[in-house]
Amino acid sequence: MIQTDAQSLEPTMSHSPQTAILVIGGAEDKVHGREILQTFFNRSGGRDAQIAIIPSASREPAAIGNRYRDIFEDMGAKAVRILDIRERYQGEDPIWQNDLEDCTGVFMTGGDQLRLCSLLADTPLMEKILLQVQRGEIVLAGTSAGAAVMGYHMIAGGGSGESPNRSLVDMTTGLGILPQVIVDQHFHNRNRMARLISAISANPDRIGVGIDEDTCALFEGDGLIQVLGKGTVTIIDPGEVDYTNEPYVDAINPLSIFNLRVHVLTYGDRYHIPTRSLHVPEQRLSA
Amino acid sequence: MIQTDAQSLEPTMSHSPQTAILVIGGAEDKVHGREILQTFFNRSGGRDAQIAIIPSASREPAAIGNRYRDIFEDMGAKAVRILDIRERYQGEDPIWQNDLEDCTGVFMTGGDQLRLCSLLADTPLMEKILLQVQRGEIVLAGTSAGAAVMGYHMIAGGGSGESPNRSLVDMTTGLGILPQVIVDQHFHNRNRMARLISAISANPDRIGVGIDEDTCALFEGDGLIQVLGKGTVTIIDPGEVDYTNEPYVDAINPLSIFNLRVHVLTYGDRYHIPTRSLHVPEQRLSA
Repeated sequence: MIQTDAQSLEPTMSHSPQTAILVIGGAEDKVHGREILQTFFNRSGGRDAQIAIIPSASREPAAIGNRYRDIFEDMGAKAVRILDIRERYQGEDPIWQNDLEDCTGVFMTGGDQLRLCSLLADTPLMEKILLQVQRGEIVLAGTSAGAAVMGYHMIAGGGSGESPNRSLVDMTTGLGILPQVIVDQHFHNRNRMARLISAISANPDRIGVGIDEDTCALFEGDGLIQVLGKGTVTIIDPGEVDYTNEPYVDAINPLSIFNLRVHVLTYGDRYHIPTRSLHVPEQRLSA
Repeated sequence: MIQTDAQSLEPTMSHSPQTAILVIGGAEDKVHGREILQTFFNRSGGRDAQIAIIPSASREPAAIGNRYRDIFEDMGAKAVRILDIRERYQGEDPIWQNDLEDCTGVFMTGGDQLRLCSLLADTPLMEKILLQVQRGEIVLAGTSAGAAVMGYHMIAGGGSGESPNRSLVDMTTGLGILPQVIVDQHFHNRNRMARLISAISANPDRIGVGIDEDTCALFEGDGLIQVLGKGTVTIIDPGEVDYTNEPYVDAINPLSIFNLRVHVLTYGDRYHIPTRSLHVPEQRLSA
């Protein structure tokens, strides 16, 4: 057996225990219980929350920004502002960075993850957000494209309905907020298991996190993931993979990969990345 | 952690070392290289092959039967007959059983797996086929619906585009030829990972085998699976699963399942069910 050169998953960024990052699989409930958005609002301070919305992934940033602003104002946030960044130079403008000073929560909307990255990656604004998230001063959330950008490696696009293969997924560089994971969103809804397996075959030092619609993987500072919402979070852990043909096969031929560990998690389940351990809620065990 | 009550996977049927069962994911090449059909032909004896085609899964049994007859005759089979069983009583008729005496290969076509099972399950004809397969006297192949029937538990239908959940898959009883596995066919082509995971959550004493189109899992007598064809065979092994909410959750809520082991295999890869061990071809390792 070939031993894959899997690197250690020691976090490359330190997070404070208060760090909270909500990675949302898209299409979260905006009308009824609004559980995931309410959790973001509560974690951001509830009625003391000062929320910044980044709608830059969208081609209709004004409309989508206003929609989320109305929701968080309706919940009773102290302040909601929209960081309607449409050009890269805006991320270098001190005015926008000052806007973050009092912020307790930042929400990145859906749209196109490539657009979001091209506007924000490596800007002083993004670096400031990252620092405040790591310190636990800001709660960060991203949905759909806003979720896809979380990893260092990002899925830019891809297909379904095929055997896993290298051309099934387009990889690029994300914002690196959660560098140890590769996020895929609308996961089972859009049948993305084969593309996430393909992405992980090429990057066996990461962990695949597939998040269904109206579902959230809440990352906390110590590497704990907790599941919120109506669907599942699928963990694809290649830590024990002992063979893949990924380095040897051409782009369209199918991939072999042996010994993936897969977990399907639902509401309340927790997964601790550093120890790879799983926890089910106490009340479920006594059901 | 809850320990699931996973039973041992000791085979419930004994197979001779010569046993060969080709489980084909549907849409196998019938025109160009015809690799999978050629393998079935060769294993059945090549120019000495006497092949029986069972087209009973199909609503157009004459057309599909003739199509495969033409292929095997074109390859040079000594004899090809079509067991065009359209009523259950035919499976009890000694004439059809006598037809099997000289047979070296039996091929079950695609169509509707429920129809195939309702016509064949527990008939003297099927019992005779099974006995001859176990003794290594007959090579058995099934494609699409003809593959779905192989397990004791059979996927009768289901959906995709949803989180794994109990209502995503309709389970019934198959022909029990390979009782230890649950087969799903057209696997990645029709995005069936979530439904096979759902099936395995409910039956954690089995192994899920998802077979792509134009791909074959060749089962040999000692529990060895070898992959042929253009796509992948996905093994879902729940042997180490230590929690699933399947017994407690209602039909439409999503399933939790922890610690599935998943292998994606391609041409030439082998998986040995009794020892759960994987083998990659030697020439691949030196590539």
